[in-house]
Amino acid sequence: MSAIKAHNYDVIVSTSISEELNNYFKDKGEQYSKVFVLVDDNTIQHCYPRLAATVDLFKDAELIEIEHGEENKTIDICVQVWSTLGERGADRKSLLVNVGGGVIGDMGGFIASTFKRGIDFVNIPTTLLSQVDASVGGKLGIDLNHLKNEIGVFNNPQGVFVDTSFLDTLDPKQVRSGFAEIIKHGLIADAKYWETIKMVDHTDVNQLSVLVDKSINIKNDVVLADPFEKGLRKTLNFGHTIGHAIETHFLETEDMLLHGEAIAIGMICEAYLSHKVAGLSKEALDEITNFTLAVFGKVSVTSAPIDAILGLMQHDKKNEKGVLKFSLLSAIGKCEINQEVSSEQIQASLDYYNSAIQ
Amino acid sequence: MSAIKAHNYDVIVSTSISEELNNYFKDKGEQYSKVFVLVDDNTIQHCYPRLAATVDLFKDAELIEIEHGEENKTIDICVQVWSTLGERGADRKSLLVNVGGGVIGDMGGFIASTFKRGIDFVNIPTTLLSQVDASVGGKLGIDLNHLKNEIGVFNNPQGVFVDTSFLDTLDPKQVRSGFAEIIKHGLIADAKYWETIKMVDHTDVNQLSVLVDKSINIKNDVVLADPFEKGLRKTLNFGHTIGHAIETHFLETEDMLLHGEAIAIGMICEAYLSHKVAGLSKEALDEITNFTLAVFGKVSVTSAPIDAILGLMQHDKKNEKGVLKFSLLSAIGKCEINQEVSSEQIQASLDYYNSAIQ
Repeated sequence: MSAIKAHNYDVIVSTSISEELNNYFKDKGEQYSKVFVLVDDNTIQHCYPRLAATVDLFKDAELIEIEHGEENKTIDICVQVWSTLGERGADRKSLLVNVGGGVIGDMGGFIASTFKRGIDFVNIPTTLLSQVDASVGGKLGIDLNHLKNEIGVFNNPQGVFVDTSFLDTLDPKQVRSGFAEIIKHGLIADAKYWETIKMVDHTDVNQLSVLVDKSINIKNDVVLADPFEKGLRKTLNFGHTIGHAIETHFLETEDMLLHGEAIAIGMICEAYLSHKVAGLSKEALDEITNFTLAVFGKVSVTSAPIDAILGLMQHDKKNEKGVLKFSLLSAIGKCEINQEVSSEQIQASLDYYNSAIQ
Repeated sequence: MSAIKAHNYDVIVSTSISEELNNYFKDKGEQYSKVFVLVDDNTIQHCYPRLAATVDLFKDAELIEIEHGEENKTIDICVQVWSTLGERGADRKSLLVNVGGGVIGDMGGFIASTFKRGIDFVNIPTTLLSQVDASVGGKLGIDLNHLKNEIGVFNNPQGVFVDTSFLDTLDPKQVRSGFAEIIKHGLIADAKYWETIKMVDHTDVNQLSVLVDKSINIKNDVVLADPFEKGLRKTLNFGHTIGHAIETHFLETEDMLLHGEAIAIGMICEAYLSHKVAGLSKEALDEITNFTLAVFGKVSVTSAPIDAILGLMQHDKKNEKGVLKFSLLSAIGKCEINQEVSSEQIQASLDYYNSAIQ
C-alpha cells in the first residue's frame, strides 16, 4: 500500500482497499448520517461486490445506479441523482462514495459538491484512466451540449482509494485508454519514466499496476504546485487540446473514441506541433509517433472532421480571448506552456497524423 | 457611499453605483475577455438602463435575459444560460454581472461558479430582499423539485454593488418582503436596531435605505465569523425553518407567497417556539407577533398545508440525522442555535399563528 498526500486528502493505492477503507473510516464513519454509493451498470456487477461484503461503511449503504459511458455525463443524470438523494433522505451529513471510472468520479464529485451546497464524497476509481488521471486534481464536472467538462467545480474528496486489482475487470480497450495518460506523464515530466513505459506490455495488468503509483505521483506533484491551473498544471494538457476536440467530434458520430484513443491522436498531433514550434527534435517526434501508433493503431481523420475539430477547439477552456494556447514538448520529459499555434499549423498537424505510417 | 469588507470582496452601498463601478473596474476591467450581464424582464426595463449608459464595463457587454420569479430558479434555466454563454464565446476570463433580485443573484452566481469550473461574477442586487440578505454570504444555488436552494455552492463574487435608488422601482409588496429580513436582523442580533425598525415607515423607500447599510453590516459580521454555517451563522435561520417550508408549500399552490411573506409567518411561529423552548418572554412574543402582523397581515394556514409543511421540513438542509434544529430567540436581540423542537410543538406554533389576532 502507498499513501500519496494530495491537497488535503490522501490517495491510497493498494491491492486490498477494503482494509484501507475500514482503517480510514474506523473513526470517521460515525459522523455520517447515511452513506450513498454511486455505481454504474458495470461497477455494480464487477467492482462493488468485492467491497460490499468487507467494507464496514457499506453495511447500510444505499446504492444509486446509472448507465456507464461519457454520453451519460450530463445534467439530466445529475438531476436524477440529486432527486434520488433527496427522496432517500440524504442530508448535509451524508456521504457519497463514487465507485467507477472518470464519468462516475467527475460527475459524482460534482453532484456531491453541489447537493445542498456540498456534502462529503470519496472516490474509488476503477478504470486505469480514472486511477492515473482523475484520482487527483479536484476537477469535477459534466459535459454540456457535447462540450467536455463545460460545467463543473474544483473540489476535493475526503479520500481516494485506488485498487489496482480492479484493472482485471476491464475490457482491454479501456485499459489501453488509460495507458494514454501514462504515456503523457512520461512525455511531459520524466524521460526516465518514458523509457520504462516503452518496455511495459500494456496488455499485462500486473505490469501496469506498477505504473499506477508512479503516474499518480507525477500528476499529484504538478497539481499540488498549481491547483488552479495558472501555470505548471497546464503541462497536463499536452495532447488534450486537439485530443479533446477529436473526442468531442467523434462523440457526435457513430465511431465513438475512448478518451485515451482520442488523446493518443492528440499527442501525436501535438508532438508534431512541438517539433515545429517548441524545439522537440525530429528523432523524439518519430519515437513518440511510432510508439503511440504501435499501441493505439490508426484512426482516419478526414477533412470534414478536421473543420469540425477546429471549430470545437474554439470552445476549449484553455482558449483565452480567442487565442489557443498549447502545452508542447521541448524534449521528452520537458513541457512548455502557453505556446501559440495558428490554425494552419493545427491543420498541418492533423495532416501529419493522417500521413504517418503505422 | 459605504464599503463593507466581506470575506474577500467589498459590498459597496451607494446611491450612485455607476461611479463606484467605474472606479472599481478602472484597472480590473481590462482583464476580462468579455462581459455578460444577466437580467430579468423587470430589471432590463427598470434597472439596467440606469447603468448601461454610464458604466464603462457595460459598453460592449452582452445581455442575457431570463424571466423573473422564484419559479424560474431552476436547472433548466441554468442550462439555457450556460448554453448561451458558450454560444456567445464566453471563456474562463469572462465576467458575469448579475443585475436583479435574489433569484438572479443566487442563480447567476451559481451559473458563473460552475461555468467552465468557475468564472468571475459581480452582483448588483436590485430588490430590498437581495440587498439586505443575498448581498453577503456566498450562498448560491437553485431550487430542485420545489425544494429551495437544494443545489448550489458556496462562492464569493468579485464585488457587490448595492444601489438603494433601485428600491423605487419595486412593487410595494416586494419592498415589504425584504423588510422581513430587516426585522429578523433586529430580532437575532440587536435590540436597539429593533427599536429603530419599529419606528420606520416601511412604505417609505427613503427611510428604508438607511436600514440597508445597517442590515448588511449585521449579516456580514455573522457570516465573516462563521462562513460555512457551523455555529453563529445558523442564527440567520431564525424564522426560516418553518418559513421556507411554508414558502415551498405555497410555491406549489395558486396563492404564492413572496419569500418575506413566508418568513414573516415563520418568524411568528418561531417566536412562539422561542417562548416555549428558549426563554423568550411572553411580552416579547406579543410584541413580535403584533408588529409582524401589522406589517404583513394574516394568511390562513389550514390543516392540510400544516401536514404538507411538516413533511417538507424533513428536507430542510438544517435537518441532521432526522432531527430538526431551530435557531430561536432567548430575548429580542439574542438568538440561540441548535434548539430541538418536536413536531407537536411545530404544529402548536402554526396553531398559534392561526389564532393570533391581527
